Amino acid sequence: MTADLTGKKIAFLLDNSGVEQVELTTPWNALRDAGAETTLVAPEQGTVQAFENDVEKADTFEADLAVSAAAVEDFDALVLPGGTTNADALRLDAGAVALVKAFAEAGKPVAAICHGPWALVEADVLGGKTLTSYPSLQTDVRNAGGTWVDEQAFTCPANGWTLVTSRNPDDLDAFVLAAAAAFA
Amino acid sequence: MTADLTGKKIAFLLDNSGVEQVELTTPWNALRDAGAETTLVAPEQGTVQAFENDVEKADTFEADLAVSAAAVEDFDALVLPGGTTNADALRLDAGAVALVKAFAEAGKPVAAICHGPWALVEADVLGGKTLTSYPSLQTDVRNAGGTWVDEQAFTCPANGWTLVTSRNPDDLDAFVLAAAAAFA
Repeated sequence: MTADLTGKKIAFLLDNSGVEQVELTTPWNALRDAGAETTLVAPEQGTVQAFENDVEKADTFEADLAVSAAAVEDFDALVLPGGTTNADALRLDAGAVALVKAFAEAGKPVAAICHGPWALVEADVLGGKTLTSYPSLQTDVRNAGGTWVDEQAFTCPANGWTLVTSRNPDDLDAFVLAAAAAFA
Repeated sequence: MTADLTGKKIAFLLDNSGVEQVELTTPWNALRDAGAETTLVAPEQGTVQAFENDVEKADTFEADLAVSAAAVEDFDALVLPGGTTNADALRLDAGAVALVKAFAEAGKPVAAICHGPWALVEADVLGGKTLTSYPSLQTDVRNAGGTWVDEQAFTCPANGWTLVTSRNPDDLDAFVLAAAAAFA
């Protein structure tokens, strides 16, 4: 059962194109059901195009907030969904990378799934952390100073901030439970 | 003008899905026009699905050779096209990564464009090399020991093998010229 998240403000950070739809909607709905207030943050306020299996166009969503208007002080936790092209594009947005770094530096929990952890590589916050990801990222994670593990969901409290990670959409149930526990 | 490549055997290595079509077809056609014999190598012999702009399904091609049947001894040079999901998937194929490493160890030239250099990160051959790539890879390249530069085409002869790299499809003319010069 998911932890009670009443009153918790949670940012979902993604690019305006490429998010793997179920990695957005499943945690979004579950964390809201647990009482959290969720905000969709993207480089541009406006449409977010989601995909299935990386390349099959799926639904569109509306970003509530542009990255440039998002401040770590306004949130209790951060979620980084995957999608290969989403995660690849997001790491090129300097504001998005700075926001990710700000959560770690503020000691606030972050949950990332699949290709989402590339933003953590880019933010240079993985030294001393243990995490999982989509397996194609494992060399990038290790080269960024992290320890890579092959787990359904892994929670790492090192360095004063909690990082929850999962490998792929099949891990979503475990990911949501671990993220909610970390965010509670 | 492209260098004469008569008699040169050149492998193009990519995943069975995701290659950015123009990053396959432009070098393929130009190197063949220069006299080279080209071979399409993929994890599975059979269909290769190309894309435009990463997510728009384009043409299909036939892989001539499975990675498991490809040997560095049979080729003079290697081309690694991009496409985000292609390059992300290819690095998970241990045989493909071993083949890339074998080209570097044999002192044979390699040309990689856009997201193609992820295979070089995975093969752990970038220590002491200078290269460019799609900019989202620059942190991964640096963390793998490479020096990243923002150039249309860059040729690096360090460590006894020549590496030619470019950033994106707009660099294709310069990429082809530099690759042909390195392969001649």
